[in-house]
Amino acid sequence: MKIDYPIPKKHSQETLIATKTNSSKSRLGLSFEEAINQSNDYYQQKNIAIIHKKPTPVQITKVSYPKRAAAKITEGYYKVPSTTDYNGIYRGFYIDFEAKQTKSTSFSFSHIYEHQVNHLDRIHRHGGIAFLLVNFDGKNETYLLDAPYLVQLYSDSKQGGRKSIAYKYFQEFAHLIEIKYTPRLDYLKTVDLVYFNGDKK
Amino acid sequence: MKIDYPIPKKHSQETLIATKTNSSKSRLGLSFEEAINQSNDYYQQKNIAIIHKKPTPVQITKVSYPKRAAAKITEGYYKVPSTTDYNGIYRGFYIDFEAKQTKSTSFSFSHIYEHQVNHLDRIHRHGGIAFLLVNFDGKNETYLLDAPYLVQLYSDSKQGGRKSIAYKYFQEFAHLIEIKYTPRLDYLKTVDLVYFNGDKK
Repeated sequence: MKIDYPIPKKHSQETLIATKTNSSKSRLGLSFEEAINQSNDYYQQKNIAIIHKKPTPVQITKVSYPKRAAAKITEGYYKVPSTTDYNGIYRGFYIDFEAKQTKSTSFSFSHIYEHQVNHLDRIHRHGGIAFLLVNFDGKNETYLLDAPYLVQLYSDSKQGGRKSIAYKYFQEFAHLIEIKYTPRLDYLKTVDLVYFNGDKK
Repeated sequence: MKIDYPIPKKHSQETLIATKTNSSKSRLGLSFEEAINQSNDYYQQKNIAIIHKKPTPVQITKVSYPKRAAAKITEGYYKVPSTTDYNGIYRGFYIDFEAKQTKSTSFSFSHIYEHQVNHLDRIHRHGGIAFLLVNFDGKNETYLLDAPYLVQLYSDSKQGGRKSIAYKYFQEFAHLIEIKYTPRLDYLKTVDLVYFNGDKK
């Protein structure tokens, strides 16, 4: 499936930065994605959880095989991700989430695909832990929003409701994640609070 | 991490075919990978399980943005996958597996990375369902080998033991998967047998 993934358009939209390694750095010196990945490395080293970022899906259309060198992709296109950015296992449970960073004071639904929302909904219904992480870049705050809230608001937006989730909504209904030295973004502590009544692993 | 992923070398090794869409077709008209993906689509449609193939990891080094067209990747390299090919949720459990096809009458350990074996071991220890699927192309048979067996044999091979797993071993210790019309490769039926004492979902 080769699709017209609007990368340049996304880059020109100032309200949302792709969570790429080389994009904006947080005040702690790590990008949002780096902070998540560093936390996941920490969780794995400490045998707390096994959570990985999925690779960016690419449709490879041309590859060259130079002698004495690695195969080189010379033509390819971005594909729409089938699911979400991160998944794995925590406390024996399947865990799955999407992570987004915004410079705005709201999270616009234009920055998540409908099938990703549906995917999180399915995971939740199958007994998995499913949520959205949103980093408000200007505030250096990251919130965990449990999937059913996201699903409801997204569904409302399709029926004429608000096309974004306001920062105030996150303050009220989502959960602020603590930023520490290590792990940088201790989101599993928040998962303990939201999904395990605060019991620690 | 840009690495020298030996694509051409792998292609020249006749014993193992990469599980790519365009590679060998099974006698039922679908490649091994297509059969797994078709089965996963079926499981999702029937609300039985949510299992997806992870994208092939690629290090993108150059992208061009032609006007009025999709962003085009003009230089990239294959990366070693961090984990396995497939994961998801089934019966509330995290499920994770690697799928390999061989033309040989054994499965050589040269076709799986040590960190992938370690990953399956970790998933098993965290309470997930972890296994290897091996398709013997010449026989049109696919076996499910539970992770602890793979881990033990792999560990033995590192200490001077056999560098491959014989077909006869699969016959004795692994589980043959039924090939049907739909889902083509009903591996979750085998998962029920191996991990749930045969109880159906």
